[in-house]
Amino acid sequence: MKLFLEVVPVEEAVAAVRRIAPPVVEETVPLEEAYGRVLARDISAGEDIPGFTRSVKDGYAVVAADTTGAGEAMPAMLENTGRVAMGAAEARAIAPGQCCYVPTGGVIPPGADAIVMVEYTEAVGDEVLVHRPVAPGENLIARGEDFAAGAVVLEAGRRCSPRDLGVLAALGVAEVPVAARPRVGIISTGNELVPVAATPGPAQVRDANTSLASGFVIERGGEPVRYGIVRDERAALEEALAAAAAECDAVLLSGGSSKDERDMCAAVIADAGEVLIHGVAIAPGKPTIVGRVGPAPVIGLPGHPASTCVVLIVVAGPLLAAMTGERRAVRTATARLTQNVPSERGRDDYVRVALDGEGGAAPLFGKSGLLNTLVASSGVVRVPASREGLETGEEVEVLLW
Amino acid sequence: MKLFLEVVPVEEAVAAVRRIAPPVVEETVPLEEAYGRVLARDISAGEDIPGFTRSVKDGYAVVAADTTGAGEAMPAMLENTGRVAMGAAEARAIAPGQCCYVPTGGVIPPGADAIVMVEYTEAVGDEVLVHRPVAPGENLIARGEDFAAGAVVLEAGRRCSPRDLGVLAALGVAEVPVAARPRVGIISTGNELVPVAATPGPAQVRDANTSLASGFVIERGGEPVRYGIVRDERAALEEALAAAAAECDAVLLSGGSSKDERDMCAAVIADAGEVLIHGVAIAPGKPTIVGRVGPAPVIGLPGHPASTCVVLIVVAGPLLAAMTGERRAVRTATARLTQNVPSERGRDDYVRVALDGEGGAAPLFGKSGLLNTLVASSGVVRVPASREGLETGEEVEVLLW
Repeated sequence: MKLFLEVVPVEEAVAAVRRIAPPVVEETVPLEEAYGRVLARDISAGEDIPGFTRSVKDGYAVVAADTTGAGEAMPAMLENTGRVAMGAAEARAIAPGQCCYVPTGGVIPPGADAIVMVEYTEAVGDEVLVHRPVAPGENLIARGEDFAAGAVVLEAGRRCSPRDLGVLAALGVAEVPVAARPRVGIISTGNELVPVAATPGPAQVRDANTSLASGFVIERGGEPVRYGIVRDERAALEEALAAAAAECDAVLLSGGSSKDERDMCAAVIADAGEVLIHGVAIAPGKPTIVGRVGPAPVIGLPGHPASTCVVLIVVAGPLLAAMTGERRAVRTATARLTQNVPSERGRDDYVRVALDGEGGAAPLFGKSGLLNTLVASSGVVRVPASREGLETGEEVEVLLW
Repeated sequence: MKLFLEVVPVEEAVAAVRRIAPPVVEETVPLEEAYGRVLARDISAGEDIPGFTRSVKDGYAVVAADTTGAGEAMPAMLENTGRVAMGAAEARAIAPGQCCYVPTGGVIPPGADAIVMVEYTEAVGDEVLVHRPVAPGENLIARGEDFAAGAVVLEAGRRCSPRDLGVLAALGVAEVPVAARPRVGIISTGNELVPVAATPGPAQVRDANTSLASGFVIERGGEPVRYGIVRDERAALEEALAAAAAECDAVLLSGGSSKDERDMCAAVIADAGEVLIHGVAIAPGKPTIVGRVGPAPVIGLPGHPASTCVVLIVVAGPLLAAMTGERRAVRTATARLTQNVPSERGRDDYVRVALDGEGGAAPLFGKSGLLNTLVASSGVVRVPASREGLETGEEVEVLLW
């Protein structure tokens, strides 16, 4: 086995996972369950929304021209023909010189072209005094003004927010076409690992990566399938990988922080399928593996938690996005570095930073084996392969966790 | 009934919902189900993490002083005593002049105080040539360096991210103390409303607010309980409100966009319990109601979707945060307005804006009855009550949806 990895640029690793990602599988869920799901199709308006011209204020429907010049001293005087009931279809037409009370959301009667807010009116017997002029179209929403029939309203790849659910409801989409959640098998390897509920012996640590990777998979719209801790024994790893690749749409194989483990992971993936990439020009995270077993992409994550987080975001994120079709808006913040960040040319460095709330980003240089910097950091700053470092005061884009 | 509302400042409404919010109820969930849940207690390290000093590189454990002055031309020559197995407790002590191979994650043997990376060594028979000096402590994580026994690692009120799950795993927290999800009853009122699956008649619209509010409740860690559409009839509303208040921890009563409906909602809440606030100095969203029925806080949301969104964020958000204990990091972005935003003194205006990706925030002045601006906007900009407006080019903080 080789001592040094042949690393490829990050872009190549991302292109590889996109190439081997299984296609999006569409399913339908009731609107009540669509929160956070990724739309599998464009959603169009099936009809004009709203389907009728409606008032947005409590007031009187009028012919706007009748109110020209109206003021406190010289109100327009209009004949009150009654009121429109909410949800009632019939609305008697208004003729010039007439008006009709319409509550917010009510139908504008034929002939009327504006609403005068009730605050600017005074009912006197069968007449209504209007103290302010209104322009045609004022205080109403025209039929189709919100969404015109046929218009694409929400695009495929959008993750449903509360607002999107409201829009889907308005459009009558009671059953929502979404991407099925990809099942992602998660395997942790390492003889030093014990389950979370166990008390570690003198040379043991609890398995943090299974939880880290599971949480990430959920966050990105997948469903984690946990295969637990597998000892660094070839047969055990082969068995776990075969099961995960058969039962899941993709596999995250975590661990292999030492060269021996790494090599064994790569060898087991190669035997069961193929290794496309072993080594990515990224720090932390260099010993990343990208491979495939049957149709299932397999990503070999480095063992250190901080490395795992970076590789999850940079490599596994694009895989999950390809499998769900999510066009994710990357959340970033702009800040100024409070300290120099040295780096090496030829690799992308991802440095954890803590935002100080005053525009500053403080680099956290903790070892990638530590979890504490993950708690303290707000995200990471990328130092591109072409740079030797970033300087104090430099404006950087923080990729928020 | 009064024509004009007596509005209170936003701060007063927020203080009121915090005051009447039921206390956080703690429950325990398995770590596998803790993603996105809010921690109900501070989480401390029960023991030093890691519990032993471990290597972070593949290499040789050495006495650092033995490598002083080592170089390519003049390597240090150390006796190789063997290798440490992963997860194995015993590790023979190293004496000066000796070294021992330790894979990443392995125990540092007694006597050693640094790891020389394998890349800088050469094994020659029973000897190892070391081509670079190391400093004491290099390439290892000391016992307790990640988390010291007793230290608070994650604070109550934190919403569990994937990284937090990794940390909980490392700490051995297999059962996580979290805030129970508050059950929030959601009632939509309005005679013009039809269910999502129905085809609206000539004066009808589909109920969007139930979906909007349900999604918001889920997003903020609650569990929506949908009571559907209630007609604007006093008895029907009384019945629905009584059921929701009895069965849920809080109630969101949506609708009442017209004054008549609003007044009826307020009257029904007052009869069943008490109305604390009717009218908030906020636009959109002025006719907001804050009340209580039994121990359950009741928020009367305005009927227009955009108003509903603003009031959900500004008033219902703090209620849910109080009920879950979440100390939510508000997500904001800094941008420059691309257009003037006029406003009125004496009320907080929340203006929807679309970020253009180049540092600009374009105000969307659509009517609050429209859903389309909710789709197009990235969030809202607050124009505080003390300002008459914001100017083009002004730097603003965008409260992201």
